[in-house]
Amino acid sequence: MQQQGEVIGFESQVYRKDGSIIWISENTRAVYGDQGTLLYYEGIVEDITERKQTEAALRAEQEKSERLLLNILPKAIAEQLKQGQGAIATRFEAVTVLFSDIVDFTGIASRLAPTELVTLLNEVFSTFDQLAEDYGLEKIKTIGDAYMVVGGLPEPRSDHAEAIAEMALKMQEAISQLHTNQGDLFRLRIGINTGPFVAGVIGIKKFSYDLWGDTVNVASRMETHGEIGRIHVTEAAYQCLKDTYEFAPRGTIAVKGKGTMNTYFLAGRKASCIL
Amino acid sequence: MQQQGEVIGFESQVYRKDGSIIWISENTRAVYGDQGTLLYYEGIVEDITERKQTEAALRAEQEKSERLLLNILPKAIAEQLKQGQGAIATRFEAVTVLFSDIVDFTGIASRLAPTELVTLLNEVFSTFDQLAEDYGLEKIKTIGDAYMVVGGLPEPRSDHAEAIAEMALKMQEAISQLHTNQGDLFRLRIGINTGPFVAGVIGIKKFSYDLWGDTVNVASRMETHGEIGRIHVTEAAYQCLKDTYEFAPRGTIAVKGKGTMNTYFLAGRKASCIL
Repeated sequence: MQQQGEVIGFESQVYRKDGSIIWISENTRAVYGDQGTLLYYEGIVEDITERKQTEAALRAEQEKSERLLLNILPKAIAEQLKQGQGAIATRFEAVTVLFSDIVDFTGIASRLAPTELVTLLNEVFSTFDQLAEDYGLEKIKTIGDAYMVVGGLPEPRSDHAEAIAEMALKMQEAISQLHTNQGDLFRLRIGINTGPFVAGVIGIKKFSYDLWGDTVNVASRMETHGEIGRIHVTEAAYQCLKDTYEFAPRGTIAVKGKGTMNTYFLAGRKASCIL
Repeated sequence: MQQQGEVIGFESQVYRKDGSIIWISENTRAVYGDQGTLLYYEGIVEDITERKQTEAALRAEQEKSERLLLNILPKAIAEQLKQGQGAIATRFEAVTVLFSDIVDFTGIASRLAPTELVTLLNEVFSTFDQLAEDYGLEKIKTIGDAYMVVGGLPEPRSDHAEAIAEMALKMQEAISQLHTNQGDLFRLRIGINTGPFVAGVIGIKKFSYDLWGDTVNVASRMETHGEIGRIHVTEAAYQCLKDTYEFAPRGTIAVKGKGTMNTYFLAGRKASCIL
């Protein structure tokens, strides 16, 4: 102020006598007499509290919207969609996908009121969502009582199969802790496949990040052709995991459109590989 | 200015000599001589272009995020989730749900490159999305090549069954216009059911507005037990629609967990009811 002779648009938060806090902006300049002596400062002090509050509210709104968006879509995808980009589809060479399904869910559901049912599903899926977050996996969606989660996208990672294997083991463990008020236990069938996928967002409404391709269908079939409480994996997933995990061979099964496939049940981490 | 003797924080857009437009804020007061004659105005003119641009950018960002959010979630649901509300589940007494599925999609898919496949699905689903918008229906999701859409929520409407019936007829019409480059035609199986549902958002990641309950499962079974190119409806949906639409009885079919059900094929609007 002394060097420049003036301040323009100097913004600060100040206390008023009544203790309240306001934002002010100061525009002040020094006025000098004929001899160059400083006579006084003159200027305007403005209450800009309202403007600051508007800006803060706008920022808070934006943060809330953004947080919700990033709950729903991967960041890069959300950005592309915001720019008005239409269908987005990217090919990934090596991704691992997991489908799980609650055994006899229709039977359990028929003994519960619809809202009880949804409360229970909320409990199950919230547990799985937390696991997906812990392992840095991308939840894709739920379909009734089924859960779909993927490793290796939208950011590729070399340990996509291991991360999914860990998730599957933890899901089986977590589900065994849950039961209905009627004492019905939950049990899962889980199917896993590894391979190339196309992932992205299509359509014009209800954008959602999804996967397509034969590899997805095979993962889903691993689940439906699986066994209660077990984790059923394809040969491709087995090849990625066999050095670190124990497996029991399932033998060959017929998969529609794929002929017969060698499949395996994932049993757990090898003793020498326990983290 | 003349009456008040001053203006504070007067904001305006002005042209500069070089033709560019800036925002200025003026703080000015009139200075009077001893006789009360107006000597001059003194004050400060500030360039506030940067502040205005920040605000405009913030608003534009917020609008983009908001538009994207409202593409994905019903407005009321998005607001509740932004406020940090967890699981949301509401019971609806009368809602109509539609599932469609592309016949032999696996076969068609196996003759296409994955990206071609996604391009085609994008075309199909964009057409359906537009129809859902036209009829004011809530798209729920796609599952592979399946499409799920609902009438009567989140805003209840008395014509939920008719709106879905119109959508189904238009979907069958629209799909007959589409085919792959190889000349494969697309045909749909459609299933419809009316009844009570629980709808809402559960879990903690990838929020999506979804439906649960027995009525959803039955709608899905109408689709899987349907016939190529036809619209298969339950007795409950038939009762809502029989005065306005033509039906062919299907007879009774066995539905898992529900015993035998009387079902119908929707043929079209009655001649006397054509809009």
